[in-house]
Amino acid sequence: MQLGLAAWHRYMQTGDMALLEALVAPDAVFHSPVVHTPQEGRAKVVMYLGAAGQVFADTGFTYVRELVDGAEVCLEFTAKVDGVHVNGIDLIRFDLEGRIADFKVMVRPLKAMNKLWEMMAAALEKH
Amino acid sequence: MQLGLAAWHRYMQTGDMALLEALVAPDAVFHSPVVHTPQEGRAKVVMYLGAAGQVFADTGFTYVRELVDGAEVCLEFTAKVDGVHVNGIDLIRFDLEGRIADFKVMVRPLKAMNKLWEMMAAALEKH
Repeated sequence: MQLGLAAWHRYMQTGDMALLEALVAPDAVFHSPVVHTPQEGRAKVVMYLGAAGQVFADTGFTYVRELVDGAEVCLEFTAKVDGVHVNGIDLIRFDLEGRIADFKVMVRPLKAMNKLWEMMAAALEKH
Repeated sequence: MQLGLAAWHRYMQTGDMALLEALVAPDAVFHSPVVHTPQEGRAKVVMYLGAAGQVFADTGFTYVRELVDGAEVCLEFTAKVDGVHVNGIDLIRFDLEGRIADFKVMVRPLKAMNKLWEMMAAALEKH
């Protein structure tokens, strides 16, 4: 699991999509901050995380708090997207092989959620 | 810290406001899921947590995941408020005496945030 978390940080530093693909389990699930319905399967998870990567490029995205408890981690981040302060968490569960099994994102405040919704929709349209 | 977390769970089970007051540090800070500006001081923290308690009464509020890492905990919850699925986290930092020093809430999806904003405003008006 520690290897999985280290690999996640490496992906965040490099933006290496091949690394991300290898890190996400085939049956992984992504939970959007905006929408209730889970997105299932590696292809969708990679698509959403890739789009998030585009949205957060050059926003000063920084992890400011990290909780690790067994196979679960909670990474709190801050960023400034299009002038709007974004504070959020990545809540990740790794499987026994250290791959991402479940990835949930929450953000605050309301203004940030509305901004991200707009930006994510634009980023996902390119796919 | 473990005592602080146990006391928090006891408060959640009993709704005992005296227990909550004793559990919150004098200089504690509350971070709303909706608004950017932190709410500082025990009185405000207790007021917000009390209002949240009213909003989540009889909603099937349940903690579904708990991460503990030193003095920090992340408690994930689910509830159904006025027909709307709410998924969120309480991200709590305890001080050395096991009191709540920092309490941050995030919720998803967007529909849940809008619903909670409406309900919290109504609950806070009573104060």
